[in-house]
Amino acid sequence: MSNYFLRTLREDPSDAEVTSHRLLVRAGYIRRQAPGIFAWLPLGLRVKNKIETIVREEMAAAGAFEVHFPALLPREPYEVTGRWDEYGDGLFRLQDRKGSDLLLAPTHEEVFTLLVKDLYNSYKDLPLSIYQIQDKYRDEARPRAGLLRGREFTMKDAYSFDYTDAGLDVSYQAQRDAYERIFTRLGLEYVIVKADAGAMGGSRSEEFLHPTAVGEDTFVRSAGGYAANVEAFTTLAPPAIDWAPIPAAEVHDTPDTPTIQTLVDRANDAHPRPDGREWTAADTLKNVVLALTHPDGSRKLVIIGLPGDREVDLKRVEVAFAPAEAEAANEADLARHPGLVKGYIGPWSKSGAVLGEKSVTGIRYLVDPRVVDGTEWITGANEQGRHVFGLVAGRDFQVDGTVEAADVRAGDPAPDGSGPVELTRGMEIGHVFQLGRKYAEALGLKVLDENGKLVTVTMGSYGIGVTRILAIIAELNNDAKGLIWPETVAPFDVHVIATGRDEVVFDTSEAVVAAIEATGREVLYDDRRKVSPGVKFGDAELIGVPSIVIVGRGAADGIVELWDRRTGERTQVAVADVAASFG
Amino acid sequence: MSNYFLRTLREDPSDAEVTSHRLLVRAGYIRRQAPGIFAWLPLGLRVKNKIETIVREEMAAAGAFEVHFPALLPREPYEVTGRWDEYGDGLFRLQDRKGSDLLLAPTHEEVFTLLVKDLYNSYKDLPLSIYQIQDKYRDEARPRAGLLRGREFTMKDAYSFDYTDAGLDVSYQAQRDAYERIFTRLGLEYVIVKADAGAMGGSRSEEFLHPTAVGEDTFVRSAGGYAANVEAFTTLAPPAIDWAPIPAAEVHDTPDTPTIQTLVDRANDAHPRPDGREWTAADTLKNVVLALTHPDGSRKLVIIGLPGDREVDLKRVEVAFAPAEAEAANEADLARHPGLVKGYIGPWSKSGAVLGEKSVTGIRYLVDPRVVDGTEWITGANEQGRHVFGLVAGRDFQVDGTVEAADVRAGDPAPDGSGPVELTRGMEIGHVFQLGRKYAEALGLKVLDENGKLVTVTMGSYGIGVTRILAIIAELNNDAKGLIWPETVAPFDVHVIATGRDEVVFDTSEAVVAAIEATGREVLYDDRRKVSPGVKFGDAELIGVPSIVIVGRGAADGIVELWDRRTGERTQVAVADVAASFG
Repeated sequence: MSNYFLRTLREDPSDAEVTSHRLLVRAGYIRRQAPGIFAWLPLGLRVKNKIETIVREEMAAAGAFEVHFPALLPREPYEVTGRWDEYGDGLFRLQDRKGSDLLLAPTHEEVFTLLVKDLYNSYKDLPLSIYQIQDKYRDEARPRAGLLRGREFTMKDAYSFDYTDAGLDVSYQAQRDAYERIFTRLGLEYVIVKADAGAMGGSRSEEFLHPTAVGEDTFVRSAGGYAANVEAFTTLAPPAIDWAPIPAAEVHDTPDTPTIQTLVDRANDAHPRPDGREWTAADTLKNVVLALTHPDGSRKLVIIGLPGDREVDLKRVEVAFAPAEAEAANEADLARHPGLVKGYIGPWSKSGAVLGEKSVTGIRYLVDPRVVDGTEWITGANEQGRHVFGLVAGRDFQVDGTVEAADVRAGDPAPDGSGPVELTRGMEIGHVFQLGRKYAEALGLKVLDENGKLVTVTMGSYGIGVTRILAIIAELNNDAKGLIWPETVAPFDVHVIATGRDEVVFDTSEAVVAAIEATGREVLYDDRRKVSPGVKFGDAELIGVPSIVIVGRGAADGIVELWDRRTGERTQVAVADVAASFG
Repeated sequence: MSNYFLRTLREDPSDAEVTSHRLLVRAGYIRRQAPGIFAWLPLGLRVKNKIETIVREEMAAAGAFEVHFPALLPREPYEVTGRWDEYGDGLFRLQDRKGSDLLLAPTHEEVFTLLVKDLYNSYKDLPLSIYQIQDKYRDEARPRAGLLRGREFTMKDAYSFDYTDAGLDVSYQAQRDAYERIFTRLGLEYVIVKADAGAMGGSRSEEFLHPTAVGEDTFVRSAGGYAANVEAFTTLAPPAIDWAPIPAAEVHDTPDTPTIQTLVDRANDAHPRPDGREWTAADTLKNVVLALTHPDGSRKLVIIGLPGDREVDLKRVEVAFAPAEAEAANEADLARHPGLVKGYIGPWSKSGAVLGEKSVTGIRYLVDPRVVDGTEWITGANEQGRHVFGLVAGRDFQVDGTVEAADVRAGDPAPDGSGPVELTRGMEIGHVFQLGRKYAEALGLKVLDENGKLVTVTMGSYGIGVTRILAIIAELNNDAKGLIWPETVAPFDVHVIATGRDEVVFDTSEAVVAAIEATGREVLYDDRRKVSPGVKFGDAELIGVPSIVIVGRGAADGIVELWDRRTGERTQVAVADVAASFG
């Protein structure tokens, strides 16, 4: 350490919002260059390389071959798939001196697809899985949390190519298994959650989340083993109800009921249920008008009907309508549809259907899956100050379909019947995704099958954020004094500290370093002569190498001290036994 | 190879201008993504990694520490040093969503300087050498020659930091020595040439060139060991001459002498030399008016006087006046100086000095180093149709200095007295450069010296183009059939080919592969069952693994064939001896 390129800092960096950022900067692993853009110092690079080595080994074990694509790519393939526009402000775009459009790639689906199209043409060439560990770019609106959300970051992205759905399942499983091995080796607890409701024709998508209260993602899980991120959660629809015994709907005056609660109170006061049970918000059907803006700039309205005790979750809505962006409709939107009476919107009116099939508005009407045929609702009558009571889905109004738009709550039943879910937080550490034929179709990747027929290839995409994972490991492995690396990714295996001024200390230290290195372990040796033991101990705690050897006064008697960074435990051991003490 | 991600191509890529590009694409090492931008396939990545490993080992041996900077950097530091503008169209510039200016770094002097400024403050921290192996970007006007001149390319760039000039010399020498070891290990013949005339206050700069007739750089060398690129060559000035015995200059009419040759002919006809020797072009003083455009847009004239048998070399001029760009002055430039008579420009006129000290034009007048005091010249008299004969430098005209602007020719004497030089061509494979204090001054990198005084740090910069070197190695190691890698960088050590259909062939092959791998060597195994031996041999020759083992009919008798890719020699060897045959 007397000449190693490493300086620890006493002060926390002023812009550090999270522990990992704070400690990685203070301990000399990284330095910020611009918002969300970091330089890697020797210690940081060592940890990053160790993570990459683990990823490479498991990719090889999964049968994937490593390639490496440029970060700077031409616009054309991203134009074909629509992502040049869909990425919006998140994409770094630039032009070369000839005015050709280029981008800094956020992911590489397009060019991997084109590479395979270039080189392969037969089902015999498949399956194929290829990957790269490469620096990617996203122009985040608010780069934050150090390496957790950067603008330049390192990812392992793998892509699989098959010509049958069954083949894709096998390739997907191989990557999924590799991810489990990778996270296990990295000592990262993970939950595999469904990440896509499967709206895209049976495609499958799962996220690996590390469960932690400070996670930025919310996911749900049941005691019975179901796990999904909130966007992917699907509502368990109750069975349909026979509406034969249900009396006809009635329209009632409901003045001064601006909220669901005032409506429910009014209903209980003025129109109590015949069975004596109180009306609740869950008996009302709230109809929310949303405007969807598509990447081509077009704006369309959709109305979503959901039980009055639920809120619309716009993130879930946007997954349902991807890649459109959703927001509440504005006055101008509503003004174009005089059939909708604000505050009293419903699918039915005394003069006919307002929403759904053959309606006067023609606006698409989608409902929460709980709105099954035969359910009875209090909902707007499309007249100022009036609601309709006992309006029966299927009998009195028709819908254009269902949509997963309502918020998810603790206690909601898991869709697989495994019981109620709880909501918990996590950090994304990996993503496996069956892309299906979307990219292959857009870019024309086809191969000849066994019968000599051209078939479109089906693909998977599998990502791990290397620098993000490094930050998460740092986030999880520290204490008030600094970092505490797991052995698998520590920058060095052992940190040897010489304390004192006697030559015997330094001679012993050098012998200890040599003995440990002879076992194949990497040693960081603090040989600084003008630095106090206290500073050296503080640096060691900050840097976080898991095993520390202190060579001090005992050296003259052939004794050194082993110091476990994680437990803080110190034990004395004979110099001759030090190397063997690391197993 | 039955499932390895590798496809060789029968056809040359249509855009390949050089052998390395053609063969690396055909043999499945790289694929073009855009002009000057390539993807690395598994074979290519393996070779690239091997080169990088050699570079890393020698950097470590030179005491340099590895770091890694982002490619995407903010404008500010490059603005401070002036490089944001100086790079002109060669720099990829972009803006983020907030409109902040960013660049894709072509080299990293600025941010390395700032990093050290951030972390270091004492002479005790120095010397320091740090490096990275990283992807760089240059928006080349004409990206060409495959990897030899790309727009995205991998470089090792190292930077040294010292607080004394003597320290810089030591750091520089350590990198220079490391480069010699690297190129030796890579099997690359090199010549170390001076790359800078030393105009920048004693700084030192050398290029490592691989001598080859197809090189893009011209350099000179003498039998006595002098070597320099043409831009750095310095002219050996003759000794000054005593002008006491030289008669006064005379003005003569010289009508119809538009060229040097017509002037010389006219001089020999009408004004023969008293000593009977013929006038030659070397006796005339040609005065060339150049316009220099500086990065700030300002345009200034300079006049260069040189012997009439020499031409101005604009590349040498631009080195002398860097970072200005030079071109011939135009009519408008000349029109502003009526004292200059086009075709008859000279430093002297009958009414006084036109150029040089106290001249009427005030234009800076620099001469070739051969124009020493006491030399006699025929030159323009600044009158239409008249020249002055016997004009003596120092006596009859004064200059503002000398400049290395004349072209360099075979036979010119080396400046170190080591004899005449020859001109030869080479490819740049590395560059070591004493930056001195330029960047440290601009960015304020100072440390406290032994006396507690702040001193500006002095730096060196050391670059090797990793991808460029890979291409050069490919360029030098091939034949009509394909690549022939040196062992140190071959993608695999041994290529085993199973030919035939008998199971004994495949069983034997697998045993051979296992035996070779057990010695620590990497094997590419061609186990394809439906591919003819001819195609396999062709692929092996194209791919260029240096050692090939053919397992065929002899397998039943325990005999296989060793095939040396470079010599073409084939020898039979017993299966049991194969692994040992690779030393």
